[in-house]
Amino acid sequence: MSGRRPPPRPSRGRETRAGESRSREPRAEGIGGEQIEGRNAVRELLRADRRRVRELLVSKTAEPSDVLTEILDLARLRGVAVQRVPSFQLAEKAKTDSPQGVIAFAAPLVPADLDALLAADNAFLVALDGITDPQNFGAIVRIAETSGATGLLLPRHRSARVTATVAKAAAGAIEHLPIASVSGIPAALERARKAGCWTVGLDGDGTTELFGLEIADRPIVLVFGAEGRGLSRLTRARCDVVARIPMAGRVASLNVSAAAALACYEVARRRAR
Amino acid sequence: MSGRRPPPRPSRGRETRAGESRSREPRAEGIGGEQIEGRNAVRELLRADRRRVRELLVSKTAEPSDVLTEILDLARLRGVAVQRVPSFQLAEKAKTDSPQGVIAFAAPLVPADLDALLAADNAFLVALDGITDPQNFGAIVRIAETSGATGLLLPRHRSARVTATVAKAAAGAIEHLPIASVSGIPAALERARKAGCWTVGLDGDGTTELFGLEIADRPIVLVFGAEGRGLSRLTRARCDVVARIPMAGRVASLNVSAAAALACYEVARRRAR
Repeated sequence: MSGRRPPPRPSRGRETRAGESRSREPRAEGIGGEQIEGRNAVRELLRADRRRVRELLVSKTAEPSDVLTEILDLARLRGVAVQRVPSFQLAEKAKTDSPQGVIAFAAPLVPADLDALLAADNAFLVALDGITDPQNFGAIVRIAETSGATGLLLPRHRSARVTATVAKAAAGAIEHLPIASVSGIPAALERARKAGCWTVGLDGDGTTELFGLEIADRPIVLVFGAEGRGLSRLTRARCDVVARIPMAGRVASLNVSAAAALACYEVARRRAR
Repeated sequence: MSGRRPPPRPSRGRETRAGESRSREPRAEGIGGEQIEGRNAVRELLRADRRRVRELLVSKTAEPSDVLTEILDLARLRGVAVQRVPSFQLAEKAKTDSPQGVIAFAAPLVPADLDALLAADNAFLVALDGITDPQNFGAIVRIAETSGATGLLLPRHRSARVTATVAKAAAGAIEHLPIASVSGIPAALERARKAGCWTVGLDGDGTTELFGLEIADRPIVLVFGAEGRGLSRLTRARCDVVARIPMAGRVASLNVSAAAALACYEVARRRAR
């Protein structure tokens, strides 16, 4: 499909010594996900059945819907304690503006292993470089999951944890998309390169046009930078390619989650060919 | 470029009697836009110079930045009164969580004429069918403008006005993208059809795949439905094509602004060929 041949990459996994590199990325505690609000997010939590759900609060006045019925059926099936509470009590516990009548309390998300994610033949990873806005963070997780991404890389320090707001914006995608907690994005990109993955940053002044990205069907890590500031200097230096989205209007930039939608689906459509 | 020929369309403008149809869409008062917060949004307001800016409030402790300098220079150039105020006063006036130290008060946006938008040879319009979330509304305006859309159709009753939150999320795009206020989306789509435009709705159960949309380079109206509910029944019936985004994950749908990014840039990339 591609007209030009991209430069050679090291063969997959050749330079990765799994034991050693794993020891450099100790499993992080606390990527979050303990409080889940919103009907889609709670439904996916119960559907996925990957972590223990301690308790489910449902407002006594929650508007009936097919999703709510499925939530209650799944809770019964999984043996999850359901408490019907007055709506003011639900609102008191809620951490989002609109829990839609349901809050679940669950065991925290278990971080995925970075090397395992990098070693997958079809690796399609999304790295968040300092994205702190929980709406954008959640939206990108949802976009990544629906486009077929195989994992998310989340820096331990600069980015938000998976809060209730993130989980709600992700509409359940956090239950399905493996999330690796990494000490820093630049170091993770270096490991990705050694594992044979291409690293592609998105930025307004990128040198390659996103819609001509020929390496999109290779093992790949897409990197999105912080709102406003964009990719950090170190992260940019570690990217094989910095891609830009062609802009036709007067406003200079897209929101990072819109850029992520275009980039993730560029990978998806190349892979579908 | 297209493999199959789409069905014929009436010639452009043949069935439109401009005087008559205009009388059916009286110019609406009040699409909003009077209060603008956030540095990008205020800068574009002043750059565009299309409407009177009554007053600019700037926090005395606003963090200096290139954008803020440009705002102050433009305000001087345009003769806009600038008031430096303590940050608590700015916060009291603010309608968004984070005005970034600047609030402008301006004359309201002037609605565009629907028939003029439909008659343009390169018409590329975006219609919002009941989208009320201001973040999504603003994000879609920004996406539409950057992708080269020529206008936005906003229903008078069901959708949000251009509030400060919408304007901030649109990052200035409301100053550049003409916005027509219409009595209803189904009626506007019927007029679009008569004016020779294709009407394309986006929905999860659409029958055509978005990425194969061959009519994207014709005069077109893209229609996005409300969060959760999707396109209304009447709107869907008026669409020539209902397109879906191919989904590769477990989560069933994308946020409407992510879907809008993919659809608007599908039009942009077809037109760029």
